[in-house]
Amino acid sequence: MASPSPGNSITLRVDAPSRISITSELAAAVAAAGAPVTALDISESHHDQLVVDITCNTTSEQHAEQVAAALEALEDVTVRKVSDRTFLMHLGGKLEVVPKVPLRNRDDLSRAYTPGVARVCRAIAENPDDARRLTVKRNTVAVVTDGTAVLGLGDIGPAAALPVMEGKAALFKQFANVDAWPVCLDTKDTEEIIRIVKAIAPVYGGVNLEDIAAPRCFEIEARLREELDIPVFHDDQHGTAIVTLAALVNALKIVQKKIEDVRIVVSGVGAAGNAIVQLLKAQGARNIIACDRKGAIHRGQQHTDAHRIWIAENTNPEAFSGTLVEALKGSDVFIGVSAPNLFGPEEVATMAEKAIVFAMANPDPETDPIAAADHAAVVATGRSDFPNQINNVLAFPGIFRGLLDAGVSDITPAMLVAAARAIAARVSDEELNASFIIPSVFDPHVAQDVAAAIVAAVQA
Amino acid sequence: MASPSPGNSITLRVDAPSRISITSELAAAVAAAGAPVTALDISESHHDQLVVDITCNTTSEQHAEQVAAALEALEDVTVRKVSDRTFLMHLGGKLEVVPKVPLRNRDDLSRAYTPGVARVCRAIAENPDDARRLTVKRNTVAVVTDGTAVLGLGDIGPAAALPVMEGKAALFKQFANVDAWPVCLDTKDTEEIIRIVKAIAPVYGGVNLEDIAAPRCFEIEARLREELDIPVFHDDQHGTAIVTLAALVNALKIVQKKIEDVRIVVSGVGAAGNAIVQLLKAQGARNIIACDRKGAIHRGQQHTDAHRIWIAENTNPEAFSGTLVEALKGSDVFIGVSAPNLFGPEEVATMAEKAIVFAMANPDPETDPIAAADHAAVVATGRSDFPNQINNVLAFPGIFRGLLDAGVSDITPAMLVAAARAIAARVSDEELNASFIIPSVFDPHVAQDVAAAIVAAVQA
Repeated sequence: MASPSPGNSITLRVDAPSRISITSELAAAVAAAGAPVTALDISESHHDQLVVDITCNTTSEQHAEQVAAALEALEDVTVRKVSDRTFLMHLGGKLEVVPKVPLRNRDDLSRAYTPGVARVCRAIAENPDDARRLTVKRNTVAVVTDGTAVLGLGDIGPAAALPVMEGKAALFKQFANVDAWPVCLDTKDTEEIIRIVKAIAPVYGGVNLEDIAAPRCFEIEARLREELDIPVFHDDQHGTAIVTLAALVNALKIVQKKIEDVRIVVSGVGAAGNAIVQLLKAQGARNIIACDRKGAIHRGQQHTDAHRIWIAENTNPEAFSGTLVEALKGSDVFIGVSAPNLFGPEEVATMAEKAIVFAMANPDPETDPIAAADHAAVVATGRSDFPNQINNVLAFPGIFRGLLDAGVSDITPAMLVAAARAIAARVSDEELNASFIIPSVFDPHVAQDVAAAIVAAVQA
Repeated sequence: MASPSPGNSITLRVDAPSRISITSELAAAVAAAGAPVTALDISESHHDQLVVDITCNTTSEQHAEQVAAALEALEDVTVRKVSDRTFLMHLGGKLEVVPKVPLRNRDDLSRAYTPGVARVCRAIAENPDDARRLTVKRNTVAVVTDGTAVLGLGDIGPAAALPVMEGKAALFKQFANVDAWPVCLDTKDTEEIIRIVKAIAPVYGGVNLEDIAAPRCFEIEARLREELDIPVFHDDQHGTAIVTLAALVNALKIVQKKIEDVRIVVSGVGAAGNAIVQLLKAQGARNIIACDRKGAIHRGQQHTDAHRIWIAENTNPEAFSGTLVEALKGSDVFIGVSAPNLFGPEEVATMAEKAIVFAMANPDPETDPIAAADHAAVVATGRSDFPNQINNVLAFPGIFRGLLDAGVSDITPAMLVAAARAIAARVSDEELNASFIIPSVFDPHVAQDVAAAIVAAVQA
């Protein structure tokens, strides 16, 4: 299902003869190789010769090579250089640390640094709560990972995880003016991760756990929540759950069903699946069937891990046992946070009338969303190239903005529900339709609405 | 010796009658209370009444109260509010984390974050050295403290140390475009500090240790240097030593003495004193007498700690034994990194002809620099309100700029000496005099000269 993407955008610099038809020849060759041209610039013009920069989207590095080969095949055309725009964007990293105060002269220095700073230090030593007023702790979030469950890439380690954490920090600033900093830990030891996050906490007003493998992530989050006096949020769990609930609230409006009445099949009981089940219950869902690789989890089974035991006891009231595909039959909602290509459109057809399908495995969903739409009333994915992208970016910036503004030390389920409702409410009744159940990630109001909802939930 | 300082600058907002003489009355009252007025602004003007903002430098919070009382004593004048400009500057912290890449639309997001970022992650997983090219590691320094030896304040803890570390990070960016981030650790355990710094290292291109009490700081630095593949620099040691050596190189030019020939008394054998002794030796000094609270350290004593043993074996060739004051007699150079008010001008008078006195204890030097100047040829301190301020700001930004640019993993003594020589060389022969042995901290060329010297030392 790979289609050319701006994430695989390349710029090819070619030497070409200056014949009249050359730009159309170049553009046609790239297009014929399956790569949409997004820009074509003459960068140098000589008497007989041109230097042309052609920018296009590709599907992969192999595809980029095919595009280059297609250009080389043209008469007298040579590809000088292929630049990958994604790599160009990452050169030198994506964040910088910038002073908010002027340091132009001795007076500035005397206040921001020695000797004046000593009085600020003493004030905090005497009254530790002043740290939230007089330091960056007012506005900082640590984006903490051990690099063990990064995107769909798995355990790639802390150094290779850094570009994702930088991107996350950039989004925090862009969408909610939160100063987030990547903390990529070179250890997989649960106790050590807990100790380190506690030790670095004086600098931060919140902790966003990210891409830490299950089940370690549950223990780390639970312990840090208990032992730290700043809010701790595992985005892969709660961020995903919040945006999923927001989308479901709106999808249920379209099909005119109530969350209390629908049967919901959740595929995947890792970090995201667990949090989704819990948040759906907090919102009133009564009939959830959670499936792992072996099928529905039910109370008739013997489970050893605490999360499956909890799920067995708190979901699946009819004690349905069977495969995921069997569970789908007659269900109203499918929510997938699991693995690619688990079923086809024919299984979607077995679901109840006006079915809702959220196939969020990345990059390849549990079922083809285009084909699923033939049988389901609403379809959503985690991808940006289909309608209804369930994207955590809608949640985490505003959530931490609200937590920091309210000076919260603990996150409650009521706050998560409030955040989901705020996201859902950004889609007005006039805008709501089967292809628009969730606001755009670039809607500038989402983060502030979510922040306001968190602050209101704190005050409630 | 406290004199009014911009670090204690306050702004008083007063209600005053609009009589013709009022501004001069206000200014005179503040001046008479011993506070130099730096600004006076009419912020509101009514028919009979003015609101005036008076900004002035004070010596302390008590002094600020005296200034307010002096204004209140004027006829019909009321002080509405006293704002401390140092505290105002610190509100909300002094740093922010800013994206270097645009995130305006879906294409930007696809490259900076998912799905495009996955390719960058994979590239680093396959070739870990690419982290220096494709992430912030290219330009980042961790400013690490445990808050145990902050300025002259001692063990005030990691939260209260944060304003200093933020200030340091701001200076890193301002002077050398280095992205530094505060790491204030809530632990005093040497092994744990070492483990944590190693665990967070994937995000950083260098480590600046700061305000960690001796002797723990020595062990932490030594171990991290051995166990990390990025440069580790304890600024309280090496930063101070570098700037001291730079100042000494120029002071010796003025008195026309050679470092090989002079007798140097170093007072203080903590972090700074140790590093100074080592760097002076690397530069060719042969006759150093290091003193602790009990007097000169010499080989006739029994020492238990490794640093005093090293000093006893490697300094004081004549095995002088006696007090600091006795050691001063006939010596050419005094370098103090110890405690306030250890001796007076009469002891300075016992030093050799054309003596050099660096009294760097902060905020109160080992001896009054004004009085010392009656007997010494060159006097320097750590303070900004006397000539010749020995300030680490001259060293650390350029040093890390050079280390990052050269991709260095280990710092050598040759690099430290090169940095000191580069700082000294910024004072031209025409500029050099007893009151200008060291460049201004605002000299924009110092950091780049130091960086270039480091890069050259790496390539040598």
